[in-house]
Amino acid sequence: MAVKYELIKQCKQSGARVGRVHTPHGVIETPAFMPVGTQATVKTMSPEELKAMDAHIILSNTYHLFLRPGHDIVKRAGGLHSFMNWDRPILTDSGGFQVFSLSEMRKITEEGVNFRSHLNGDKLFLSPEVAMEIQNALGSDIMMAFDECPPYPAEYQYVKQSTERTSRWAERCLKSHARPHDQALFAIVQGGMHKDLRIQSAKDLTSMDFPGYAIGGLSVGEPKHLMYEVLDYTVPELPATKPRYLMGVGSPDALVEGAIRGVDMFDCVLPTRIARNGTTMTSQGRLVIRNAKYAEDFGPLDPNCTCYTCSNYSRAYIRHLLKADETFGIRLTTYHNLHFLLQLMRDVRQAIMDDRLLDFRDSFFESYGLHNNDKGF
Amino acid sequence: MAVKYELIKQCKQSGARVGRVHTPHGVIETPAFMPVGTQATVKTMSPEELKAMDAHIILSNTYHLFLRPGHDIVKRAGGLHSFMNWDRPILTDSGGFQVFSLSEMRKITEEGVNFRSHLNGDKLFLSPEVAMEIQNALGSDIMMAFDECPPYPAEYQYVKQSTERTSRWAERCLKSHARPHDQALFAIVQGGMHKDLRIQSAKDLTSMDFPGYAIGGLSVGEPKHLMYEVLDYTVPELPATKPRYLMGVGSPDALVEGAIRGVDMFDCVLPTRIARNGTTMTSQGRLVIRNAKYAEDFGPLDPNCTCYTCSNYSRAYIRHLLKADETFGIRLTTYHNLHFLLQLMRDVRQAIMDDRLLDFRDSFFESYGLHNNDKGF
Repeated sequence: MAVKYELIKQCKQSGARVGRVHTPHGVIETPAFMPVGTQATVKTMSPEELKAMDAHIILSNTYHLFLRPGHDIVKRAGGLHSFMNWDRPILTDSGGFQVFSLSEMRKITEEGVNFRSHLNGDKLFLSPEVAMEIQNALGSDIMMAFDECPPYPAEYQYVKQSTERTSRWAERCLKSHARPHDQALFAIVQGGMHKDLRIQSAKDLTSMDFPGYAIGGLSVGEPKHLMYEVLDYTVPELPATKPRYLMGVGSPDALVEGAIRGVDMFDCVLPTRIARNGTTMTSQGRLVIRNAKYAEDFGPLDPNCTCYTCSNYSRAYIRHLLKADETFGIRLTTYHNLHFLLQLMRDVRQAIMDDRLLDFRDSFFESYGLHNNDKGF
Repeated sequence: MAVKYELIKQCKQSGARVGRVHTPHGVIETPAFMPVGTQATVKTMSPEELKAMDAHIILSNTYHLFLRPGHDIVKRAGGLHSFMNWDRPILTDSGGFQVFSLSEMRKITEEGVNFRSHLNGDKLFLSPEVAMEIQNALGSDIMMAFDECPPYPAEYQYVKQSTERTSRWAERCLKSHARPHDQALFAIVQGGMHKDLRIQSAKDLTSMDFPGYAIGGLSVGEPKHLMYEVLDYTVPELPATKPRYLMGVGSPDALVEGAIRGVDMFDCVLPTRIARNGTTMTSQGRLVIRNAKYAEDFGPLDPNCTCYTCSNYSRAYIRHLLKADETFGIRLTTYHNLHFLLQLMRDVRQAIMDDRLLDFRDSFFESYGLHNNDKGF
């Protein structure tokens, strides 16, 4: 097995757990947030900066690297770790979510998905086998099975057929995966917002004995209480001996709520994307640094933060850089936002170790200005 | 005196010299290249990165900071060093060059220059007194006198009157400079491409005993041999006991030729500007990293370079980042280009110490692919 889950501590207040995921490129302490490096780089950040904020793992995108520069080039560079100078774990998604998001530009069959490149209109094809070939070339520590992510809302019958196909595709992924000894393939539970479909999907996939399981198809527009309901009945269907990964979720409240429900891994572009618009996450809630009121505010973004940005730069300076379109400004906000979520996960892990995660949630939500679960980012 | 020039070594092969400029924020080893941080940031770089490449001093722009965020805000932040988190020396220009470049949007009188902001069209005014007030607020180690930089080509009579006004303005700068104890004011020799005007300008200004002298109005479109001719007859008019600064020059060949003629300091946006378009300076000449031939080139930008970029990243990866519009790509090319020029100046200083600067020039020009002085960047 390429990765192994080690349980460290089960929270007595919730379903949360602290653990370690052992991978060929090192250990991931969980619950973990994974910064997203879509195109073989976490936008604006260097690998050294990601290490300085103690990111244990990053995510990169199969669809984007397939299109540019092409997985053959990454393979000839010695794999994605070598290509991008990152020697810690990498998780790659399967490309499924991206091609299904192309809507008008793709056609799904049992065999796979025909689609056109969003870059140049080229006709391309992705399937379970192709997704494995690409991810085997990239050499990520954790690969994702090629799945279909149904939209929200969607008809029950459509979701049912799609979820069944995702199970058949998972089996094809398992069969065509060429490097199971050093790359772990995670399956993705689908089923929309339907309890019976989620449970059936989990049963189908766990019967194939993957080294880890993701929950996909959430954070696609549904209210947050629905997402938490799905977690409530899906997570118990997943084996306690394997890591559980909630895909595409990165709002501070959902990270805490996900951890409470037993999720081990999360990823989202949220912290890096909003940083580029000047929106930052702080211990007192979100702060839009471009606002005029910060023009002469010489304090740090977040007085309770110890990150590089908050240790060295003022709100006034960061605001100036963003107003002046200076890249260094978005380096500073990106660094801060990623550090904020990584620190949040360190706090979550400590709270689990201390059997007080529900208490932590309450105090965190209050300081962050969240009073019900549908609020927040 | 806020700054003091210490002569270390005079080259026996040329007019070049190695020295140290002592400032309130540390020592500048000369001949020195100063990276440009126009808007209180060297585009894409952190202060730590500039220190890692051993930049001794950076330049920032009075005109830009006057417009945004405003010198009052910088002053309230504790000055420019504190505002931008840079504790080494800073030189600020006077804003003159920028307002004269506005052409249609400004009107010059003996009193000063009325102009409109390029950002929002606001009516603004710069004069010797205002330029001093702004630079005193910024708190740079080295301030520049407010001068007029005539265009090239220009009528003799126009250049003569302009140069005489620059001398009168220099005197007004000297009188209104409020912090001579901790900020050194350099005067700027003008005179276009006319020997008698250059010599008169130098005589006028040196009689006022400034702590340093710049040569302005060069690298404004004239052929390089003309620039070198102006240096040949202007530098000898400047006191050997003060630093000499050639403004706006940063092509590798002109840095070497300037040092040969006794120049101590240089600045230019060239290395950072071309880096953003993917053009890099290497020991084998310039390299345009976007070219298709580098798509599968897994070697460093420059095999003879020891910088962060060349130690960790391939041409193929940097090309990928630039093609994908990833900011980290221009961080890598910017880092490399600045390191290249700073390393060139270290090599120049060593060659002066060894009395072989002319030999160094010949071998450097050959490897860089420069065979006459008008070539290069």
